[in-house]
Amino acid sequence: MKTIDINADLGESFGAYTIGNDEKLLPLVTSANVACGFHASDPETLIHTIDLVKQNNVALGAHPGYRDLEGFGRRDMSLSYKEVYSLVKYQLAAVDGLSKSVGVKMKYVKPHGALYNKSEVCEETRRAIIDSIYDYNASLYVMGMSMGKLVGCAAEKGLQVINEVFLDRAYNDNRTLVSRSIEGAMITDPMVASERIIEMIEAGVVKTITGKKIPIQVDSICVHGDTDGAVQFLKDIFNELKNKNYQFQSAVS
Amino acid sequence: MKTIDINADLGESFGAYTIGNDEKLLPLVTSANVACGFHASDPETLIHTIDLVKQNNVALGAHPGYRDLEGFGRRDMSLSYKEVYSLVKYQLAAVDGLSKSVGVKMKYVKPHGALYNKSEVCEETRRAIIDSIYDYNASLYVMGMSMGKLVGCAAEKGLQVINEVFLDRAYNDNRTLVSRSIEGAMITDPMVASERIIEMIEAGVVKTITGKKIPIQVDSICVHGDTDGAVQFLKDIFNELKNKNYQFQSAVS
Amino acid sequence: MKTIDINADLGESFGAYTIGNDEKLLPLVTSANVACGFHASDPETLIHTIDLVKQNNVALGAHPGYRDLEGFGRRDMSLSYKEVYSLVKYQLAAVDGLSKSVGVKMKYVKPHGALYNKSEVCEETRRAIIDSIYDYNASLYVMGMSMGKLVGCAAEKGLQVINEVFLDRAYNDNRTLVSRSIEGAMITDPMVASERIIEMIEAGVVKTITGKKIPIQVDSICVHGDTDGAVQFLKDIFNELKNKNYQFQSAVS
Amino acid sequence: MKTIDINADLGESFGAYTIGNDEKLLPLVTSANVACGFHASDPETLIHTIDLVKQNNVALGAHPGYRDLEGFGRRDMSLSYKEVYSLVKYQLAAVDGLSKSVGVKMKYVKPHGALYNKSEVCEETRRAIIDSIYDYNASLYVMGMSMGKLVGCAAEKGLQVINEVFLDRAYNDNRTLVSRSIEGAMITDPMVASERIIEMIEAGVVKTITGKKIPIQVDSICVHGDTDGAVQFLKDIFNELKNKNYQFQSAVS
Repeated sequence: MKTIDINADLGESFGAYTIGNDEKLLPLVTSANVACGFHASDPETLIHTIDLVKQNNVALGAHPGYRDLEGFGRRDMSLSYKEVYSLVKYQLAAVDGLSKSVGVKMKYVKPHGALYNKSEVCEETRRAIIDSIYDYNASLYVMGMSMGKLVGCAAEKGLQVINEVFLDRAYNDNRTLVSRSIEGAMITDPMVASERIIEMIEAGVVKTITGKKIPIQVDSICVHGDTDGAVQFLKDIFNELKNKNYQFQSAVS
Repeated sequence: MKTIDINADLGESFGAYTIGNDEKLLPLVTSANVACGFHASDPETLIHTIDLVKQNNVALGAHPGYRDLEGFGRRDMSLSYKEVYSLVKYQLAAVDGLSKSVGVKMKYVKPHGALYNKSEVCEETRRAIIDSIYDYNASLYVMGMSMGKLVGCAAEKGLQVINEVFLDRAYNDNRTLVSRSIEGAMITDPMVASERIIEMIEAGVVKTITGKKIPIQVDSICVHGDTDGAVQFLKDIFNELKNKNYQFQSAVS
Repeated sequence: MKTIDINADLGESFGAYTIGNDEKLLPLVTSANVACGFHASDPETLIHTIDLVKQNNVALGAHPGYRDLEGFGRRDMSLSYKEVYSLVKYQLAAVDGLSKSVGVKMKYVKPHGALYNKSEVCEETRRAIIDSIYDYNASLYVMGMSMGKLVGCAAEKGLQVINEVFLDRAYNDNRTLVSRSIEGAMITDPMVASERIIEMIEAGVVKTITGKKIPIQVDSICVHGDTDGAVQFLKDIFNELKNKNYQFQSAVS
Repeated sequence: MKTIDINADLGESFGAYTIGNDEKLLPLVTSANVACGFHASDPETLIHTIDLVKQNNVALGAHPGYRDLEGFGRRDMSLSYKEVYSLVKYQLAAVDGLSKSVGVKMKYVKPHGALYNKSEVCEETRRAIIDSIYDYNASLYVMGMSMGKLVGCAAEKGLQVINEVFLDRAYNDNRTLVSRSIEGAMITDPMVASERIIEMIEAGVVKTITGKKIPIQVDSICVHGDTDGAVQFLKDIFNELKNKNYQFQSAVS
């Protein structure tokens, strides 16, 4: 029996504003990256999301982002080491405490959006994130780009890591994602997607947009399910994976 | 030897904006009500404040308020039970986690500003605050208006409480504070202030603005020290109290 | 030929968060209450909304609200006269300037949510809103509850007013809206709704929830169109009104 | 008679948070860069600041910044053309409308902090700022780094510009400011500062930190006055300039 972890961003609504498809997406994933109230979410939404995570019995991860609600944490911000360190730690504390108080354990951390991207290219930001997680709770896993710098440095620091790949995105030869503006960036055929995933897991390689095969490590697969179509796309892939004897299970359980 | 607990609101700066006189005030208090990042403070300020509290070895309390930075949490807001419950719990979690991660224990909770006032007059808000604290950590103390409804209901729920009085404010006959707009509302003479405090502690009564003596309970004394003058005022009173053989010690240590 | 003005709240999205059904709703209305960036909207959304209003050639009104994005401006806040005055004026200025710069004239003001409700029950808030509008531009119309205190006092001040009624809501005997939690609060039958509207316009009365007929004045009709069902409901009513020889036209054009 | 324009950032307080020394600084300047409510200020502060500007009869400029109150607009943010365009236009509209309503004319625009710096190095940001100002009101002046890219491109677009220099900062050979972390970055001697200013104005050159003399154009001089010491430093320099027959007068009056 082979296992796969499926992670998705959840709990990103804010006040009267609803985003995402949490109730339909949660049953499909094994790890929930929960927004912490800075780039998205608010105290009531966060508490509600933790309840949903508990009911669905999936692994809970904090998904901290920049304090930029207007930009949904997707716009890069120039923060100092200390600012990133504090930003992340505050969000970890909020999610951790709210989770504990209903008997749920926060198991991992995945930076969100622009903070995730910055962690691959800016050494200061990366160190701030890793130090913050380490100081907060050194038994937390760090989820990041497969074989990327965040997970690499987190592992050096002694933290456990989760290498994640993307279900529906093409890769460049340097293992970054192909920009959405380029043709072929999105994988839209469920058969193709499931074959790619299986090759990544079993052969440890991914075929890049140029046709090359490069090494990749799969501890978790990141999915999105904003629309009903996207949810169906996931179901099709997961059925295919089940047919191939895969079982879905959190990377950290 | 008689002991007194002195509490003050601290850590209320925000980004480039500095407010208060924390470095000078902290050595004078035994309990620090720490802003949590909603009505005031931010992650970096909060972490810095917890460090100061640790260095000064005083009791740390969370000081949650409305999410109204522009109004500094001083403007009443109509929130539902669930909104207040979530608002408070999130702030407790943030302060608790950040404190623990540097080896400091969060010991009590005192609602801030308009939330504090609302807790005395609105049953739904009061219940939400108390339930939130209770669910988060039932060993936390609740600090509130001496003999008021917040501490009364918290005690009924089984929580430990801290009855606080105000050093520099006159009381009405119903044990509420005299509005600052009324003459005589502020106690400005350190001798008068220290005599009032001693009478409150030793006789269990306070002389109201009308001259009546009404019962009051003193577990902690709330002070402010925004200006150098205010800090000197406190020093004068505390010297007087020391002369009368009082010792300063947190109500929860 | 009889005319009716139809107004709706528009432009309430924020960043990545979409709310409402603006593209479908705008063709159905003659007056657009545009969120100003405090309880909802942001600069980009506001500029986009003004463009839509221009394309649809409807009257543009500012729809200022409390600075409470998390509560969508629906939670009452205790603001001073000066705070309300400033809050409203700032929002008027923002919408006015952005409108003018693309050749659109801001014609009226309708307070949003909790600020709207407060303006009927709090004299200080009402005066602050009216003074702010008057000082900003005394030729602006004020839209408010039909025969309510806001329009009453605005008229006394010398401002032109728009009495608005609600298409889908039952009225109490004192001309307030029946709370949504009470049975019969919502009018869901398009035939009933159109008959009520016609009676309000032609007879100047509305049948309350207790069966009484009370006077009402209709300068504009407030509608909502958050769902496709709601849009269809409006279309049905408007067809009925067209059959009765009504024409749709802004109250201020 | 030779004239000099002195500009300073003003009106940067927020709610209960006070920053700057506006009452003391305003009498010393001829142009006030007024924060617009995004990186600093709020509606009440803005209205109050415009009143102060009116009383002091100095030129009023809008000082728009990133929406990052926590970072005081000093942290770079990756915004699209459309986001910068909208951000700036909204702030111009707010300041313009509030000024007009009390009979004050907004005359120029100076981007704040990180947005100011970005405008020199990012073509997209620069174009967005300039297009926004141009579309809002093509008679507004643009204030920016002396002989820099912002004023250069604004002039090409047909806008009038104000080249500003810094009173208390050393220059690099490429006419950028020497980073504060480097020795000699700050000019602290009032005699040196006034001599430098006079050389800039009369000879059109500035001596850089390496001793070279490079061309510079002075339409306005930017000053800061956060502390009483800083205010005294300015007074000393201005007395020196008066002795040399300089008069203080806005660049746009």
